[in-house]
This record gives sequence, structure tokens and C-alpha cells, in this order.
Amino acid sequence: MLLKFPPSVPDNQKRDLTSQILDWCLTNGVVFENSDKPGNGLNVPVTLFPTPFSRHGYKNAIELQVLYNSLYHAVFKHPEFVIEQLSQLKEDEFTMKLLSIYENCSKRRTQNLTGGVFRSDYIVDKSRNSGEEGRQIKQVEFNTVSVSFGALSSKVTELHKFLAETAKTSVHGEVPVSKSLRDIAKGLATMHSAYGCQQAILLFVTQPNETNVMDQRLLEYELYREYGIISVRATLEQIHRKTTIGEQNRLIFIPTGAEISVVYYRAGYAPHEYATAADWTARERLEGSHAIQCPSIMTQLIGTKKIQQVLTKPGVIEQLQPNLTNTEIELIRKTFVGLWPLDETDLGKEGQKLAMQSPEKFVLKPQREGGGNNIYKKDIVKHLENIGHENWSSYVLMELIDPPKISNTILRNGDLVTGRVVSELGVFGTVLWDTEANKELMNNQAGFLLRTKTQKSNEGGIAAGFGCLDAVLLLSSR
Amino acid sequence: MLLKFPPSVPDNQKRDLTSQILDWCLTNGVVFENSDKPGNGLNVPVTLFPTPFSRHGYKNAIELQVLYNSLYHAVFKHPEFVIEQLSQLKEDEFTMKLLSIYENCSKRRTQNLTGGVFRSDYIVDKSRNSGEEGRQIKQVEFNTVSVSFGALSSKVTELHKFLAETAKTSVHGEVPVSKSLRDIAKGLATMHSAYGCQQAILLFVTQPNETNVMDQRLLEYELYREYGIISVRATLEQIHRKTTIGEQNRLIFIPTGAEISVVYYRAGYAPHEYATAADWTARERLEGSHAIQCPSIMTQLIGTKKIQQVLTKPGVIEQLQPNLTNTEIELIRKTFVGLWPLDETDLGKEGQKLAMQSPEKFVLKPQREGGGNNIYKKDIVKHLENIGHENWSSYVLMELIDPPKISNTILRNGDLVTGRVVSELGVFGTVLWDTEANKELMNNQAGFLLRTKTQKSNEGGIAAGFGCLDAVLLLSSR
Repeated sequence: MLLKFPPSVPDNQKRDLTSQILDWCLTNGVVFENSDKPGNGLNVPVTLFPTPFSRHGYKNAIELQVLYNSLYHAVFKHPEFVIEQLSQLKEDEFTMKLLSIYENCSKRRTQNLTGGVFRSDYIVDKSRNSGEEGRQIKQVEFNTVSVSFGALSSKVTELHKFLAETAKTSVHGEVPVSKSLRDIAKGLATMHSAYGCQQAILLFVTQPNETNVMDQRLLEYELYREYGIISVRATLEQIHRKTTIGEQNRLIFIPTGAEISVVYYRAGYAPHEYATAADWTARERLEGSHAIQCPSIMTQLIGTKKIQQVLTKPGVIEQLQPNLTNTEIELIRKTFVGLWPLDETDLGKEGQKLAMQSPEKFVLKPQREGGGNNIYKKDIVKHLENIGHENWSSYVLMELIDPPKISNTILRNGDLVTGRVVSELGVFGTVLWDTEANKELMNNQAGFLLRTKTQKSNEGGIAAGFGCLDAVLLLSSR
Repeated sequence: MLLKFPPSVPDNQKRDLTSQILDWCLTNGVVFENSDKPGNGLNVPVTLFPTPFSRHGYKNAIELQVLYNSLYHAVFKHPEFVIEQLSQLKEDEFTMKLLSIYENCSKRRTQNLTGGVFRSDYIVDKSRNSGEEGRQIKQVEFNTVSVSFGALSSKVTELHKFLAETAKTSVHGEVPVSKSLRDIAKGLATMHSAYGCQQAILLFVTQPNETNVMDQRLLEYELYREYGIISVRATLEQIHRKTTIGEQNRLIFIPTGAEISVVYYRAGYAPHEYATAADWTARERLEGSHAIQCPSIMTQLIGTKKIQQVLTKPGVIEQLQPNLTNTEIELIRKTFVGLWPLDETDLGKEGQKLAMQSPEKFVLKPQREGGGNNIYKKDIVKHLENIGHENWSSYVLMELIDPPKISNTILRNGDLVTGRVVSELGVFGTVLWDTEANKELMNNQAGFLLRTKTQKSNEGGIAAGFGCLDAVLLLSSR
């Protein structure tokens, strides 16, 4: 089946296809902004063809999202459980600082609602089962903050569908279009509406010198076009200067005097983003305000690798969600790979032993979002030896997933690079939780994303410069 | 009234507005392509604020389009009249070559239908009348071939409407959105449908190294999304290699074997585009084929300045369109400025005298589309003295229009330039004519375009590097 892929295309047709893709990207906002040259954009790297992906795995991942959203709601509903787990990361200053803001703000909270735009990432695992039906998707991580590429994923899947239908690329199969742009905007609009003040505005928290601006702007335009909701963008530093707390704990955007309904974080997940005390002050002001946080600090914290690891321990899901059926639990559990703490518990000691004895099977992960922080295979031993033993417990050891290698061509900076690639499917979810009523007001699957990288760069995570956006090609069933 | 414009905006708000505009342009395809760097785009220059335009003039121009479409149909229906007029340009090799292809092909024509995407350009004239109501729009030219900016105009008007509604720019008034992208695509789809072969494709004739690609691609995507029509792009040189005439005089695109329903010209209007004999052969193949030409050579030729001049002669409209009412004739006539030939007729001798005696009141125009070919004011005398007297009759002398000067800021390459600007309103029209039945199958107004340039650059026509895209601001009535 897979032997048919990628289609063999003569060079002149490849040139034409490349030119079509570049034009499509530039016309539809699939560009990164050049922050040095205002008004200058470069196409986001993409594959030349959509990459075949297990139909069963794709379907499975899509279906799982609402279960995962609920599982994380169950975690969220037990802050004492989260705090207990995270207190084991006491050498991790960043997590501790977030926890302390959480605790400060929970005393003065006036807002029961908290929102989330999540993304659960999967890789197909080929080692444990054989054949299409037997292939399992395994969860890489569950993201609860600053989830990106929802908008661009919609665009790139539209591009590949368009090319498959018009460009005679001999790509045979189904290319589903991700509705993530529409659905994430809908999720944010639902939060805005639940806030209950139509003329309020959304605040996008952004990083300075962000280049992935269009992925955010597309949401902003969709929110305005479909719902009439106005958004503003500000960095933590700007938020410190430009927001204030008004009457009834309302968050106010000073330049226009507008009330802010939802604070949507596309930043704030990495320690380096809090360079000054003002940045932390800004975060605490947002967290303590009446505006709906998307996500709140607690929601951000449940996305740590530590929580991901704890959830794989036998009995934990059952304890958090006693109402789940065995089938549902099994569906979730099937996506787990082995995860170990490196602390002084029995499981932690087992993890330490595995890390030192067979590092080639593992990846070592700190409690960080955003990529580029992981340590792979033999580097794990070196790394653990270099950091003090007291810091080991801030990490989680994770079994490596063995994905099928497929050939494709990546278009980057006008160049075509053909080779074996590895793909990661992310499924988006939108939630709105009421802490007082202790219930889910919204729980939706919200489209998907396929990111593909060359096999080599797999060793370095989604290092800048190797990954690209892609679309799922569901081959016809045999 | 106009004193309120442009709004005074503090520098930091101007920076924010600039950044919003640049992001919007990059997200929505309002970019020129950098043909040297694949995948690299730069925002199309735009104004910071929509420019006030006479409400009366705007309304008038929109309403006039179907009358103008019909007037040109009347001209088209009298090829002997057109040939007689154009034969006076015998020193104009390019026009003569087009005429000879027209004549060759009319013998073997199998297609009764011919299409058009037109644009009639106007400038508000302030010298002859005073006050808003008295202001007249005067026609600059009527374009029948390679009409551009229909797609980008829709986008830029959407941008300015979005900013007026969200960015608190203090722009008070109505910012109409041009439906030109939708309407021109609809016009092309109507031609395709009239051709009568759903699986046929559209051929966009393009220039090599075109940078204004997105304006064309947007139409291509709209045609596919709304009508399922596939388009291909090719230069005349590529058309020479990649097309052939199949059975029943059908035009065939060789790489895919597809039949071509409509040939849509976004090139082919300037002599330098026909660099080799192959380019002329390609044009003749298209013209003589069964594919609907948009425009055909005759339709291209009725867009010459010579025809524009002849139409202003008393009695000509009446002769061509005996059924027009006096009111309709008056509406059209009101948009005329003085136009003279420079030939040996009485009118031509009057033109010669005016050109030499008071050149500061005139612009001298050759039979060329595309800008950059006109000679202004005192340069006219020099120019006429330099070319042989036998070439004078290839030109038309046109009274200059005196537009109101308004202040605005143009954003180009990240820089803001504030100053007096002059705006030109273009109104799009789409037509489909049946030469056998001698009737109009389609006659629509199809949106509009506002182009604005700094007052200085007015002297040099729409020279590359000075004009920008804009939106109409209709100030509230007093």
C-alpha cells in the first residue's frame, strides 16, 4: 500500500507544484513574519504531498479528544492532587512560581469559569503491532497552554486538498480538512459569550518578536468576522503597562478602556518569558482578575509531564474518574507509553535504573512546553551525570515511540528536500470549566494538525528549522 | 467636511495601526511576490486610512458601469467602424499587428461568444464645479484587457472596513467593501458555463516574472472554491509549447489533455510581451480557437485611446446606440473630458495647436495599456518635436483632470509617507457578448478599486513605486 507513496512526479511538474504551493501559502497567510523586515513574509515550510497516516489511528485520535478533555478536567477538579504531585518538582523554580501565583490568586478569585485550548499529540507506533489495523497511536504529550498551529493547520490541509483535486499530483486517498481555525475560534467565542459582556474584548498574550503571528491573527480575524469580537495583542511587558483592575475585579485594557472577557495565552509557558518582575506581576494580575483565563495557571500546570506520567500509573484514572467505563479507560490507556519519574519512590528508582542502563530506548523530558528541551538516548546518561542528583526528580523518563518511516519531500525556503520523514498528529480540543458547579460547560474536539520532520531531526525534537506543516492522507482501504 | 481628515493619531497608535495593517496584508494575500526569492512576499503598499471620495461621484461611477459596458458592446458590434478608426494609427505597429490577427482569425472563427472583464477609471474633477453635489467624475480611460487589482481591491476594502470597525482609528464614515473578487470570478464562471463543458479548464495568460501574482491566484482559488473550475497559468511562450488545437477547433492544454473553455488575459497588452514570433503564434492560436477569449482581439482594440477619443465626438454615441435615452447619453457624456486626435482632420489640427500652445493643460497618450507611457504637460512639446510628424496620429491629446488634494499616509516597505494624495476610482464590469445573436448575454457591474498616489507622482502616471491600494471613505452627509 505505502509503496505507492510518494508519487513519482517529473521534475518540471515538481517545479510547477512548488510554485503552486508557494503562491497558495502567500495568498492564504501560511507565512512566518520576518520581524526584521516589516511587511515581509516567508512561506511556512510544508510537505509537497500530504503524508499517509493510519486511518485507524487518525480516527482514534479524533475520537479520544473529548475523553482526554474530560480526563484533564478530572485532574483539574483535584487541585490538592496536582499540588501534591508537583511539589515533588521542588527544584523546578518555574513550576513552583506558577504554583505560588495559583495559591495567591485562588483566595481572591471572582471568576468561576476557566477555558482551555488543548492539543493532544500522537505518533503512530509500529513496533508493538503489525498491520494497519493493529497500529496504535501513542501519546507524546498533552498541551494545555499556548497551543499553536490551529489556524495554519486548517489552511495547510485546505492547500493539500486543493492540490489533490486540481494539480493532478497522483495523490490517491482522502485528505481531510482540519476545522481547527473555525472550531478554536468558536471555542474562544463560547468563552467570551459565557463571560457575559458582548462589547468586551479578547486579549491575546503574545511573545515579543513572535514570527508565527499569522496563526494567531487568523483566529483574531475569524473571531471578528464570525462573532463580532474584537481582540487585542499584548506581551506580558505591555500587559503590565496597559492593563489595570477596575471595579468588581474587572480587567481593563487602558488604551481603549475596554473590559477584557478572555485572556488567551499564546505565550507565558517558558521561564525565559518572565524576564523581569513586571512580567510576573502582569501574569498574577491576569490570573487574579475576573477575566476568563485560557488557560488558568492550574490548567497550565496540569499539562506538565509530571501529571502525564502520574496518569499512566495503574488506578489513577479510575480514582479520578470513577464513572468512566472500562472501554473508555482502555481507549485512553492504549495511547500510553512507559513513563517513569526519577525520584526516590520505587517507580522513580526503576526509572533511574532504566535511564542509566538502556538510555537508547528513552527520552528525558523536563516540565517544559515548546520543544527543544528534551534529551534523547545516550545523551540522557551524560545529562543526568552533569546535573545534581537533587534535580533528577524534575524530569520524567519516557519510552521512545517507533514511528513508521515514510518518504516525502519538504519545501523550505524554496528548496526541496526528499527523504524519510516522521509525522506527529495533534488533535485540538476546546473546553470551558465551571469550578463552582464543578462541571464541563464545553468539551469539544476542534480539528487537528499534522507536523512532519525529517527522520534525522527526530533526534532533536521539533527543533526550529526541521519541522514543517503537513496534511493527513488517508489511503483507501484495501 | 474634509478638514476632519486624516484623523490625527498619536505616534504609538500609528505604530500599532501599521503593524495591524502589515499583518492583515500578509495574512490575506495582499502581497506582491518576490520573484527572486521563492516563497517570499512583501505587503502591497496601502494607505493608512481610507481616502474620502465624493459620495455622489462614487455612486455615479458604479451606476455608469452597465451603460459603459453597453456602449463598448455597441462599438464592438461595428468592427468596420473600429477598423476605420484604428487604420488612422497606421504608424502604430502593435495595433496593426493585432488588427491583422483579428482579420486572419475572423475567417475561421467557430466561437460566437466573447467575454470581457473591464475597468472604467475615474478621477473627481474639482475645477469645473464646486461643492460636493456639483463634483463630477471624469473618465481617465476604459480598460478592456488585463484588468488588474479586482481581487486585491476586495481585500484592501475589507481591511479598511475591519480597521474602521475595530482599531478605533477615528475614521468616521462608510467604507464600502468591493465585491470585485467575487463578481469577477462569477463573470468568468458565467463564461465557462456558457462554453458548455463543465470539466474544461480556464487558462490564465500571464506575464513571465509577474509579481502581482496573488491578485490572479485569488481569482483562481475563488473559481475553484465556488464553482469547481480548475485554472492553469501560462505565459505566451508556454502557451506556444503547451497548447494545441484539437478536434472541432478546441483548444487543448497538452500537459493534462484538458480542453480550455475560457482564455483569460492578464498579459498580452504591450508590444514588449511579444518578443518572439512564437508569442504572436500563440496569440493567434488562442484567438482562432473555439475557446472563449476574455477579451478577444477586437475587444482589446476597442479599449484603445483612439476609440475613447472618437466616442467623445458629438453624435457618435447616438449613431452607435440609437436606443439610448437622452438622460443616459448625458450621464455618459458628463464623464468626458476634452480629447483630440493629432491627425490631419480639422479636429486633429485643433489638437495639434492646443498641444503646442498650452501643453500644461494636457496629457499625451499613446495606444498603450499598463501605465508609464503617457507624456505630461510641457514634456508634450519636446516629445512631439522628437518623434516624426507622421507618428503624431498614433497619439491622443487629453485634457488634464484637476482632482481634489487630500492628505493621507501611505505605507510602503514599512515606511509611512504623509502628504497630499490623488485618488483614481476604477469600476469593474463583466460582459459576455454573442456575436451571432448580436446581443449581450451578461452585463454586470463587478465591484470597484481605489488607487491612490502622492500628488508629486501624479505627473508620471501610475509609475511603479508610487501608487498604492486604498478604500473609499464616504463621509456622512451634512
